[in-house]
Amino acid sequence: MRIAQIAPLHESVPPKRYGGTERVVSYLTEELVRQGHEVTLFASGDSVTQARLVPLVERPLRTDPDVRDTVPYLITQIDQVLDHAADFDVLHFHSDYLAHCPLVRRLGIPHLTTLHGRLDMPDFRGLFERFASSPMASISEDQRRPLRQLPMNWRATVYNGLPEDLYRLQAQPGKYLAFVGRFSPDKRADRAIDIAIRAGIPLRIAAKLDHCDEPWFREHIEPWLRHPLIEYVGEISDADKDDFLGHAKALLFPIDWPEPFGMVMIEALACGTPVIAFRRGSVPEVIRDGHTGFIVDSVEEAVAAVSRLDRIDRVHCRRDFEQRFSARRMAEGYVRSYEGLRFGRDPGEAVPWDRVA
Amino acid sequence: MRIAQIAPLHESVPPKRYGGTERVVSYLTEELVRQGHEVTLFASGDSVTQARLVPLVERPLRTDPDVRDTVPYLITQIDQVLDHAADFDVLHFHSDYLAHCPLVRRLGIPHLTTLHGRLDMPDFRGLFERFASSPMASISEDQRRPLRQLPMNWRATVYNGLPEDLYRLQAQPGKYLAFVGRFSPDKRADRAIDIAIRAGIPLRIAAKLDHCDEPWFREHIEPWLRHPLIEYVGEISDADKDDFLGHAKALLFPIDWPEPFGMVMIEALACGTPVIAFRRGSVPEVIRDGHTGFIVDSVEEAVAAVSRLDRIDRVHCRRDFEQRFSARRMAEGYVRSYEGLRFGRDPGEAVPWDRVA
Repeated sequence: MRIAQIAPLHESVPPKRYGGTERVVSYLTEELVRQGHEVTLFASGDSVTQARLVPLVERPLRTDPDVRDTVPYLITQIDQVLDHAADFDVLHFHSDYLAHCPLVRRLGIPHLTTLHGRLDMPDFRGLFERFASSPMASISEDQRRPLRQLPMNWRATVYNGLPEDLYRLQAQPGKYLAFVGRFSPDKRADRAIDIAIRAGIPLRIAAKLDHCDEPWFREHIEPWLRHPLIEYVGEISDADKDDFLGHAKALLFPIDWPEPFGMVMIEALACGTPVIAFRRGSVPEVIRDGHTGFIVDSVEEAVAAVSRLDRIDRVHCRRDFEQRFSARRMAEGYVRSYEGLRFGRDPGEAVPWDRVA
Repeated sequence: MRIAQIAPLHESVPPKRYGGTERVVSYLTEELVRQGHEVTLFASGDSVTQARLVPLVERPLRTDPDVRDTVPYLITQIDQVLDHAADFDVLHFHSDYLAHCPLVRRLGIPHLTTLHGRLDMPDFRGLFERFASSPMASISEDQRRPLRQLPMNWRATVYNGLPEDLYRLQAQPGKYLAFVGRFSPDKRADRAIDIAIRAGIPLRIAAKLDHCDEPWFREHIEPWLRHPLIEYVGEISDADKDDFLGHAKALLFPIDWPEPFGMVMIEALACGTPVIAFRRGSVPEVIRDGHTGFIVDSVEEAVAAVSRLDRIDRVHCRRDFEQRFSARRMAEGYVRSYEGLRFGRDPGEAVPWDRVA
């Protein structure tokens, strides 16, 4: 199948450091190539891929100090993609702005959009209402919840996936709990600290501090970093995660927001490491309670869950990752969606265009 | 002619306070209605017009405290306009983002875009390169300068215009110099102060202070506001301008940036008030040196010009306004452009679309 992947331009594909969407687009693109598809990736020029790369900008927008306004690049990219549209069986977009939608639905181009972000932002409400009939994929069932009143044309939920060889199973559990994320009130590293201290087990924190979160960090985190059970290891790379997550007793994922997916959960599972996660967002879909971790509603329940970690089989965690969250399974899920788009069009999607110029 | 005017959504049309583009769109829309055209205005819902109003948002985006991201509204507006496109002979867009361009040029919709901003921003370079063949209008010849290396499809320069009855000729010159604008290093109120003090003539300043310009204001302006010749009257409304500009001896326009047009110059001329302006941007096109004011290159030249103001005939300033900068003349200029679009298409503009869905 001739497939176009249209990535955001904010980060390289794969991203040099952070950039969740660009990372998923990279895993998907490489796996589609591996499965024999003819794939073209529209992304920043320093991206690395086995697919054909069509660059729009040399450097990703987020790291280019000269870039102040990213909208012109968004519009230019849409036009660039459209120039090539007839070469593809399907165009797969990864942008919540839906800047492609006015066009692709009028030109009858088979397309799919994966929404990667949270869908409850008021500014986006009118956009989703207007393009409800455009074929979209969610990255969890829970992600769709804010749009459940709209007649959305959901084609699939396709969970994010990782290459199977990216992380290795560590069959023996480690002696510390792990936290990976940003220091922010969404991710609640403060809860992780609370859980670890109450459970009397060391916590190792690998986290990024964004400028906007500094006041929260200073109030809720910094005082605890001197506690003997708490160790802050700084930011870590994907390569370091194999060791950091693999040698943990469990990952703590005490989120306080409707996380649409939560990549670090499946990174832990890929290492065989169970996850103790708060019941928000995609958590009940990703974690099998009592099998690949524990789903909790409070710090008390999380502390109790820590004491039950020996009931979790790490081999089973790894197997669950392979069955449900590999890049192979993600690519297969998307290809099934592409085929639906290719061979049939939703009547609701067709917007007539009868003007003769 | 059936004409769609697509305004930015940042301010109402006309704007309650500031918003240069929305104000010009309003004058143009009302004048086209007056000239007998069938006009539809796509704008914020609280806009006031004799045309048919198609609202997308209830309130303008800039004054809505709930709006954090304006891009979704930009995309939604494009789709909304396209739903109605077949009802019009021409679509006239007023957005430098060109978000409509990927679509209208592929669908063969007669369209014109007026670029209202400065055109030298690096982020927009690729956008203008890609859409060089789209029919565009500039608001001065000088505005085009940064794009002179590109094969742009300029259709016209149409100077901004004002309704003829908005300001009245004040035949007798006043005793003070006037400055109207923002306190910013672009507009250089500090130069106006310098000119007035050296000339020994009172200066009245009507200006807005944006948050970002506060440090510049405190260093360059604030110390001078206590000078006996300098009076700061605050921000003024359009209604106040008739009196403020009309009773001035001259408007000082000592800009230090390539101003694409400069509405206040023609507001002064509409009152019969001559303009002493620095030679930047559109100034040599708008002001007739020695006839409707003086074009200068330094504060010294400006001071000398003040002493020559009695050579300027205020009736002549008003007449020049009526002949070159009325809303009637602006609308006529655009209608001529629309007719060119209607009856012939530029070969360079046609982007083939041969896919059969």
